[in-house]
Amino acid sequence: MALRSMRKARGCWSFIRALHEGPKTVPAPQKDAVHRVFSGIQPTGVPHLGNYLGAIESWVRLQDQHDSVLYSIVDLHSITVPQDPAALQQSILDMTAALLACGINPEKSILFQQSQVSEHTQLNWILTCMIKIPRLQHLHQWKVKTAQQKQEGTAGLLMYPVLQAADILLYKSTYVPVGEDQVQHMELVQDLARGFNKKYGEFFPVPTSILTPMKKVKSLRDPSAKMSKSDPNKMATISITDSPEEIVKKFRKAVTDFTSEVTYDPVGRPGVSNMLAIHAAVTGLTVEEVVRRSVGIDTAHYKLLVAEAVIEKLAPIKRELEKLKQNKDYLEKVLQAGSAKAKELAYPVCQEVKKLVGFL
Amino acid sequence: MALRSMRKARGCWSFIRALHEGPKTVPAPQKDAVHRVFSGIQPTGVPHLGNYLGAIESWVRLQDQHDSVLYSIVDLHSITVPQDPAALQQSILDMTAALLACGINPEKSILFQQSQVSEHTQLNWILTCMIKIPRLQHLHQWKVKTAQQKQEGTAGLLMYPVLQAADILLYKSTYVPVGEDQVQHMELVQDLARGFNKKYGEFFPVPTSILTPMKKVKSLRDPSAKMSKSDPNKMATISITDSPEEIVKKFRKAVTDFTSEVTYDPVGRPGVSNMLAIHAAVTGLTVEEVVRRSVGIDTAHYKLLVAEAVIEKLAPIKRELEKLKQNKDYLEKVLQAGSAKAKELAYPVCQEVKKLVGFL
Repeated sequence: MALRSMRKARGCWSFIRALHEGPKTVPAPQKDAVHRVFSGIQPTGVPHLGNYLGAIESWVRLQDQHDSVLYSIVDLHSITVPQDPAALQQSILDMTAALLACGINPEKSILFQQSQVSEHTQLNWILTCMIKIPRLQHLHQWKVKTAQQKQEGTAGLLMYPVLQAADILLYKSTYVPVGEDQVQHMELVQDLARGFNKKYGEFFPVPTSILTPMKKVKSLRDPSAKMSKSDPNKMATISITDSPEEIVKKFRKAVTDFTSEVTYDPVGRPGVSNMLAIHAAVTGLTVEEVVRRSVGIDTAHYKLLVAEAVIEKLAPIKRELEKLKQNKDYLEKVLQAGSAKAKELAYPVCQEVKKLVGFL
Repeated sequence: MALRSMRKARGCWSFIRALHEGPKTVPAPQKDAVHRVFSGIQPTGVPHLGNYLGAIESWVRLQDQHDSVLYSIVDLHSITVPQDPAALQQSILDMTAALLACGINPEKSILFQQSQVSEHTQLNWILTCMIKIPRLQHLHQWKVKTAQQKQEGTAGLLMYPVLQAADILLYKSTYVPVGEDQVQHMELVQDLARGFNKKYGEFFPVPTSILTPMKKVKSLRDPSAKMSKSDPNKMATISITDSPEEIVKKFRKAVTDFTSEVTYDPVGRPGVSNMLAIHAAVTGLTVEEVVRRSVGIDTAHYKLLVAEAVIEKLAPIKRELEKLKQNKDYLEKVLQAGSAKAKELAYPVCQEVKKLVGFL
């Protein structure tokens, strides 16, 4: 469980879950605060179906629901674990292309590269001087990560929740869509905002988590595990760039059980339930509705039906992505323009912070 | 001993000692590397006699001995312990004025404010991702500081040696004048430079410490302790802005012993030996010479002689400092111009680093 939670966190620290029904509880923004949504995703290259359904699809929806939305490709976070420089560079562009192909509209959202806005690390240092080490060492993800690596983690791994806080506070963000595994980190962000306000006067809005119902997409080979890019079994994961043939092959081999009937029972029948969940997610129907429609179909055939629905859902994204990946110049321009817009927002906040701290 | 070492580190992390004889061993610069000296001082306000004789006087000399010299007022380091914002702001200007009054020439040295060059925190984050936590926790100063505070230190206190490394490497500095208490931190800087070069290819010169003979100025009230601004006994410390009357009063009350003869014996007679050391330092004579000249004078009279020599040494500095402190605009302009020059050097290095890491 912990291990899976960790995998997710590496890919996308601020995980947005399905917003079909809209956020369950969005509290009123604080008085005088600009209403602003912030989220970040690590540059892991081309996303898989789980990333798309679990986060990116909701990002697209959020940009229509809110006036000020920032999405950051958080490359500074990615180096908390070793990276190959050339691969990282490519992954930044691939993630940009994927987000655009999935429907992130740079006219509606500020899509930007974290390392290009120097204010992130500046605020990070100031917040670093406001937090005690044990608070960071007690965070669940740090414990999991260091235990998993069988060696002591880097300082970057320990400190990254503080950089996360800087990412969010730098834009005076009010709403941060997060998954359950990020609730502890959001408490840290809120504490840092409150601590800063207490010391220097009311300045940062205390950002609110938007906890949304999850669309958990499971591995096709082990439905007890989350679909993950780092899964060594390539048959377990659907990339949004997979060919229709690959998708059919992977769904055909998807682990289910020996009951031919299609029923939804995530505990007793995790494999077929994962098929139903994916089917519902890609068609926009409820699970009840897709169960109703599959009456009389055996699981072998049903898997192919789901594969077809996935192919249909991904086809326009895949086409757009292939086009975008040919146009490196355009991708770089989008990131540059987004980073310039982000900097326009970040610079005055950072200057204000420096004044409050006594640097100016 | 540890406590004193800590006090020093808070004031000036890169402590330059007397260079009357010039550095003992300056190795040849690395091939193709620009020969560059870097040092930083925390904005503790107006320096005391110990700061001046122990560090600043040597800085003035270094700017004549080297082509490229940077001196940074390291305000980002100062917030690793709590600061009052208004006092910090004033202290930055006071330290600037004091350095100028002591002879730092902004035409010869780049005198700048660390927080105004955003590349420091950017490189700091990249280096933070290259170092393991235990390495930082084993540093002597961290142990001393956390023990002294009787509580766990902030993350800023743990991480500041990494920021120090960023300060130095950002300018591809080759020489860093340090005191003995900073040798461990310099090893960290060297290891980070080597680690970066190993991973990304030869890029940073591995900077060399310049260890110089120390001019240790002791407390006038307790000659076993270092002269320190934070000493609660105001009679223990000579500020460079003290009036002649205050200086005479403090030296008259300086703790010596019951032997009236003036002899140099730092272990057996620390008080009178401190008088001799100060006398030698402010006159530029050797200790042997000042001992020779004090034959036949009793310690009570000798203390007044030393006071006079200190007054004479500090008089022009005090005059210049009082003039400069009236001219806030000028001080701000000096810092702004210096920070702009530092940024000109830092920006291309930081861009190169980002390319190597895979961000560009």
